[in-house]
Amino acid sequence: MDIEQANKEVLRRILDAQPVLVGVAPAREVIPRMGERTILHAGPPITWERMSGPMRGAVIGGILFEGWAQTEEEAVALVERGEVTFDSCHHHQAVGPMAGVTTPSMPVYIVENRAFGNKAFCNLNEGLGKVLRYGAYSEDVLARLRWMRDVLGPVLAAALERTSGIDLKSLIAQAIHMGDEGHNRNKAGSALFVRVLAPSLVRSGADAATLADVFEFLGNNDLTALNPVMAACKATMDAAHGIPGSTIVTAMARNGTDFGIRVSGLGDRWFTAPSQVPQGLYFPGFKAEDANPDIGDSTITETAGIGGFAMAAAPAIVQFIGGTPRDALNATLEMYEITAGENPAFGIPALDFRGTPTGIDVRKVVETGIVPRVNTGIAHKQAGIGQIGAGLVQPPMECFEQALLALAEAFDAPDEPEQVSGETA
Amino acid sequence: MDIEQANKEVLRRILDAQPVLVGVAPAREVIPRMGERTILHAGPPITWERMSGPMRGAVIGGILFEGWAQTEEEAVALVERGEVTFDSCHHHQAVGPMAGVTTPSMPVYIVENRAFGNKAFCNLNEGLGKVLRYGAYSEDVLARLRWMRDVLGPVLAAALERTSGIDLKSLIAQAIHMGDEGHNRNKAGSALFVRVLAPSLVRSGADAATLADVFEFLGNNDLTALNPVMAACKATMDAAHGIPGSTIVTAMARNGTDFGIRVSGLGDRWFTAPSQVPQGLYFPGFKAEDANPDIGDSTITETAGIGGFAMAAAPAIVQFIGGTPRDALNATLEMYEITAGENPAFGIPALDFRGTPTGIDVRKVVETGIVPRVNTGIAHKQAGIGQIGAGLVQPPMECFEQALLALAEAFDAPDEPEQVSGETA
Repeated sequence: MDIEQANKEVLRRILDAQPVLVGVAPAREVIPRMGERTILHAGPPITWERMSGPMRGAVIGGILFEGWAQTEEEAVALVERGEVTFDSCHHHQAVGPMAGVTTPSMPVYIVENRAFGNKAFCNLNEGLGKVLRYGAYSEDVLARLRWMRDVLGPVLAAALERTSGIDLKSLIAQAIHMGDEGHNRNKAGSALFVRVLAPSLVRSGADAATLADVFEFLGNNDLTALNPVMAACKATMDAAHGIPGSTIVTAMARNGTDFGIRVSGLGDRWFTAPSQVPQGLYFPGFKAEDANPDIGDSTITETAGIGGFAMAAAPAIVQFIGGTPRDALNATLEMYEITAGENPAFGIPALDFRGTPTGIDVRKVVETGIVPRVNTGIAHKQAGIGQIGAGLVQPPMECFEQALLALAEAFDAPDEPEQVSGETA
Repeated sequence: MDIEQANKEVLRRILDAQPVLVGVAPAREVIPRMGERTILHAGPPITWERMSGPMRGAVIGGILFEGWAQTEEEAVALVERGEVTFDSCHHHQAVGPMAGVTTPSMPVYIVENRAFGNKAFCNLNEGLGKVLRYGAYSEDVLARLRWMRDVLGPVLAAALERTSGIDLKSLIAQAIHMGDEGHNRNKAGSALFVRVLAPSLVRSGADAATLADVFEFLGNNDLTALNPVMAACKATMDAAHGIPGSTIVTAMARNGTDFGIRVSGLGDRWFTAPSQVPQGLYFPGFKAEDANPDIGDSTITETAGIGGFAMAAAPAIVQFIGGTPRDALNATLEMYEITAGENPAFGIPALDFRGTPTGIDVRKVVETGIVPRVNTGIAHKQAGIGQIGAGLVQPPMECFEQALLALAEAFDAPDEPEQVSGETA
């Protein structure tokens, strides 16, 4: 195994990806191996016993939404009797922001990576305030989820059927020229998304009142584009996964308890360590002690070279997460130290259109001591409350150290001892 | 007259402006003193004899569009018989990009400056390619203008009636955080404009096919927001005009032959000099010798402190007009040298949210030798061809020198001799 060759191939696959949004459908109809009474969640696999408050809240909400139980107590009892199957979104070609809870009836975006033929999925963004993904499950949260299932999802599906697909790589590239980094700031991407979908939405056959609701829902949420962008990043990184010998990270994800990574050359194994509490700006009335450890699959954006890695493109984000525009510039510059290449499709204007740093190399992370820069929302640690801030989080170095150790072991196989010393030094 | 006090008041009025888009209506119904057979045009007043190719082309197109003549020859004959009245848009609280030709049937945006009660008007953007504002008047150009009059205008009017108005100051502020400068680059503003109007558009009563056409027309044009933004700037600067003693520029405009400015303390007088040919990037097949001298009222954006003055916010614009992102940053920094203040509503992320340089002081322009930075499209010098590029243009220093001389003369009035030496030194 030649590590440099393997990483070159991984980088090529990332840069060649062509993620296109092709549809919206109920999760059960499109997500592979999604059984009934299955709940997918963000991050590496986790049991109910180890789930954090917001993850438990989202699970309870998902059960109530599906009608598998009528009360919180019944929902918990159902879980404790083992009648609900949990699995990681990532095990089903899917991702979900924050708790990432995806149940069979929920509509999901379908993104096809046209360069490689694989698909990825992500649920629909609920907007801000009290939302399931931050662990809230009050009646208004559930009513919104039902509207998304019964109205928003079918209208988006009908609209997308009238397009040849929405080119998400182009959308991300434009948004990066417009002050987005694609993770915490998706204002430009969301406005472009509504704009490009608008003609097909009005042709979808929905009546004017419904269309007005849909436009208001999509248009009042600057994170509307986050979920299709996440699916685009997942479709990109899945096609780059599984290259023997590669030391490049293909997933970073958090379940609110553990932070986990996967590496292209190390199969389906997760390398996990305790998730950290983010540092950032809190909404009025909240403070760091209220915060849950880092949660969500949205780190797929950083894994694919945007999000925190494209901070230099999004100086206005510091108003939301803290710091100065100079810090944002430096964040991107630092990420070039730990990545395999640059993505010319995502040029950063403030850096003379230099491509975003792309392809986290576990060797470089461990050698330099620089962990990937991750932007994130901050959830309250109790179920049912929701978002309390936004900021930055440090992925635990242990994940990268474990992965490097596993790579060394893999290369220690007797048939090819030479590459080990040559490539990992 | 105390110049500093006068300029302080002018700056206050600029910063306090609250431009809100409140409607769309045919020009004849809302623009003051707009007689039948009247054509408003960009820049200072000009006769047919002195009009440049693109201005003449737009005038011919306007006449054909109104049905005052059936052929180009008839249109020219009509003008030569003196049967068409020309006047500057600026004399009617209006502005128009490039040729700025506005005829009685054309729909115009109505912007109200809610802080001061005055209104301003601007025609609707036609999109790119062959368009009237660049002097093209072929049948496809006229067909589009008819569709804008019969379909787009009424639909926009019906949609705006269903809003409490679109806050354009907020829209500009957001767009400046999203890589727009508000003159040559209006991609973010245009996407936000479509997004905010979408719910009201679908509630306007138009059928789905019409709405789809409207969304495609507005959505496929990254300059959709330019025209309402120009009207917002005009409404802002008109409220700051007419303060005795002020040396601040309240209008810069070009008719394709002359570049003219007006100054707050110098009444309705224009100070003009020959318009220059822009420097920039040309579309394939065109070169500098094809270019018409600078044309259009869109310099109202720079007059109000955005456009070329906000270049630091729009590094990606250099792909369109030439130069580097560093040049864009420097352009804004230089404009602080010739302006009276900064607009905190328009914070530039790359400059730590410093407000855009605002309020061009003719004294500072003459003292420093720095002329205002102006971004612009480039028109072919022959009628009927259209846009051939985009770039930068140097306003002629003579306009500012003439204005300074006039200010000195005004202050030389025997009743108040002291301020002259004290304030203009």
